[in-house]
Amino acid sequence: MQPVNIGVIGFGTIGTGVVRILQKDAALLEKKCGRPLHLKTVAELNFVEKEGIDTKSFTITTDANALLQDPDIHIIVEVIGGVTPAGDFIRTALSSGKHVITANKELIAKQGKELFALAKENHVNLLFEASTGGGIPIINALTSSLAANTIQKVYGILNGTTNYILTKMYDEGADFEDVLQEAQALGYAEADPTSDVEGHDIAYKLCILSSIVFDHYFDIDEIYREGISAISTRDIQIAKEYGYVIKMLAIGVEHPNSVELRVHPVMLPKTHALASVNGSFNAVFVDGDNVDESMFYGRGAGELPTASAIMGDMVEIARNIERKETSAALNFGNSTRTLLPMGDIESQYYLRLNVKDKSGVLAEISRVFGDNNVSIRLVKQDNVGANNAELNIMTHCVKESQFQNAVSNIKNLSAVNDVCSVLRMEI
Amino acid sequence: MQPVNIGVIGFGTIGTGVVRILQKDAALLEKKCGRPLHLKTVAELNFVEKEGIDTKSFTITTDANALLQDPDIHIIVEVIGGVTPAGDFIRTALSSGKHVITANKELIAKQGKELFALAKENHVNLLFEASTGGGIPIINALTSSLAANTIQKVYGILNGTTNYILTKMYDEGADFEDVLQEAQALGYAEADPTSDVEGHDIAYKLCILSSIVFDHYFDIDEIYREGISAISTRDIQIAKEYGYVIKMLAIGVEHPNSVELRVHPVMLPKTHALASVNGSFNAVFVDGDNVDESMFYGRGAGELPTASAIMGDMVEIARNIERKETSAALNFGNSTRTLLPMGDIESQYYLRLNVKDKSGVLAEISRVFGDNNVSIRLVKQDNVGANNAELNIMTHCVKESQFQNAVSNIKNLSAVNDVCSVLRMEI
Repeated sequence: MQPVNIGVIGFGTIGTGVVRILQKDAALLEKKCGRPLHLKTVAELNFVEKEGIDTKSFTITTDANALLQDPDIHIIVEVIGGVTPAGDFIRTALSSGKHVITANKELIAKQGKELFALAKENHVNLLFEASTGGGIPIINALTSSLAANTIQKVYGILNGTTNYILTKMYDEGADFEDVLQEAQALGYAEADPTSDVEGHDIAYKLCILSSIVFDHYFDIDEIYREGISAISTRDIQIAKEYGYVIKMLAIGVEHPNSVELRVHPVMLPKTHALASVNGSFNAVFVDGDNVDESMFYGRGAGELPTASAIMGDMVEIARNIERKETSAALNFGNSTRTLLPMGDIESQYYLRLNVKDKSGVLAEISRVFGDNNVSIRLVKQDNVGANNAELNIMTHCVKESQFQNAVSNIKNLSAVNDVCSVLRMEI
Repeated sequence: MQPVNIGVIGFGTIGTGVVRILQKDAALLEKKCGRPLHLKTVAELNFVEKEGIDTKSFTITTDANALLQDPDIHIIVEVIGGVTPAGDFIRTALSSGKHVITANKELIAKQGKELFALAKENHVNLLFEASTGGGIPIINALTSSLAANTIQKVYGILNGTTNYILTKMYDEGADFEDVLQEAQALGYAEADPTSDVEGHDIAYKLCILSSIVFDHYFDIDEIYREGISAISTRDIQIAKEYGYVIKMLAIGVEHPNSVELRVHPVMLPKTHALASVNGSFNAVFVDGDNVDESMFYGRGAGELPTASAIMGDMVEIARNIERKETSAALNFGNSTRTLLPMGDIESQYYLRLNVKDKSGVLAEISRVFGDNNVSIRLVKQDNVGANNAELNIMTHCVKESQFQNAVSNIKNLSAVNDVCSVLRMEI
């Protein structure tokens, strides 16, 4: 059978992984695809040799257009990331009738709708398994294996950097700042960690999952997002004391007339299946009307796990290379849905206060909660120094707006020195 | 677009689920497939109406050949189970150029090689997602998403009945026989529970997974298999005491010149990810050279979860219905591999003995272990009545043949009243 010719744009971590697998697993891939995969060209502005990669067997260029205009190349792998110029490269590739595989979560989250329409116009496929959950085949599960399900809820741990930091903080009682610096030194966190630590990266992934399971592209800026930089060692201590862990979650829930989407740290009971997802591992729960609860777990990042996901897409395209039609697997993101306002979501909450150690304080706080229909599940008071006390409060399930209103009022009480921490809880 | 016509053979639990989803989710399926799915005929010898199923919209027949010879039917769903006549129906369907979807683990385990060859000869597909792991899309993950991986290890909980029984025994301290009877009354266990309880069902599934990941059809009778009927409440008590659970596992491991396959109960630390897979849930771990460790979790059985898996296969076929070629996803099971003899596997072991309560017994037993190169990790001795003691022993990792030889010798010691229990352990 004729080989399928591949062009890779970007020779960073993921691009190197793709080239490595194409070289070391050539025989396996030929068997799995029913035809050989041939790496023809790699485009990279600053090409650096990598150990174990034979650079003589493919062309290296600094000009991505050399690949995009090469009529012999059937599949373009875009692994440079970012919106520009990646988006332009992909548009050119699709318009020239080339299939595209990308790991670019930001681009798919922001321009997926337009890009998939362009793919359909040109009867080619645009696959993106590696954009979400690293090596975990969650996109294929949602678009294909679980296609006969209406998904009611999708949630999980979708960022290795924040999960690594929170795991380290938990295991070692270390400070956020210290662990972040260590993660940066080890290459687990970027020099500018904002996208990971503030949840932007996770919001892109939640946006992508939502486009499939809730069939609509939500505006990335409208997804509620809260980072982990405010999590303190004291929060972790308290979580431990009460049998909880703190995890950064992406949560998507179907409601009758809207969809709830949010990205923030959460206190989870230690017995929760996500509580044991540690370090750079990711996991995604999916609750479908037919399949019931399912979970997918694996490496959320890294050279070979992410390249494994790209190769899964490549195998899929290579098996169907004669087909001149976009797969119906890309039929999503077309309905009109609205976002549930964050004030309308329901959750349990954890609140830590520093208060004056005098009689009547708890009564005052309880009254404010009562006035806002917030029902308290647990209160624990500890002395802090001579005149102050720490109050740890956990609530029953309540509307976000009511809880936040209660917190605003509590902040104004003269007996309250400080609202130290507020965390949502999942059971 | 023209509809794809479906014929279903078998209107039991799974068949009903397939018909239910085809009816209630028709609009969703049309969108996901890019064309409508039309249920034309159901064949069932003893058709019984089911709540919520509109039987007016399809033909009901007692004659499976009416479907198999209907030129309008594109896809046959076989959900009667067993080798005969299911195998004959599938052979007829494939030979007539119809795609086939089956949930039949016994048939695929025993005749998969021949059936997939017949599918290829006739340029159609034979899909079997529902045969293994119920609603969990593990087959598609292995044949497609993780195709670019050499799998070193696949293991998991693959039978809902035994997992339900072991979970109940653990949670309630109940007897195996009592829980089995309760499970039978609730319909979670068959009237003849042998296939589940003795591990045959799991061996079929392990055989199917192995055909994909180790690329060879192993003889089902050569797979080592041990049931759970000998697990006692005392074993469960001891497991709890030491921080373990007992789970029924299927284990497949790649070795340089052979493959290790085994099905038996195992003591797992409570912190192991499989320890919290309870009730009728299943989970499969996959360790691939590129993707690293991955896990797939979900409902291992039940009407709608299993039907969800069948519908995933149906969506796949319907999307590619114009294609007159068997997918390269079915390129497996073609290499020659040999099974590692069970005596050559390595494991840690738990051993419970009833011994005479007199000095020197432990020294004698330790000597026998030492003679067989079995290193002891933990010993605990409890008095049982006036003159006897219970010895609980856990070993370090050792070859099965050496451990079993030690146990044979220990059985013959005059101070040993009884070998009460032997269990393999995983860390």
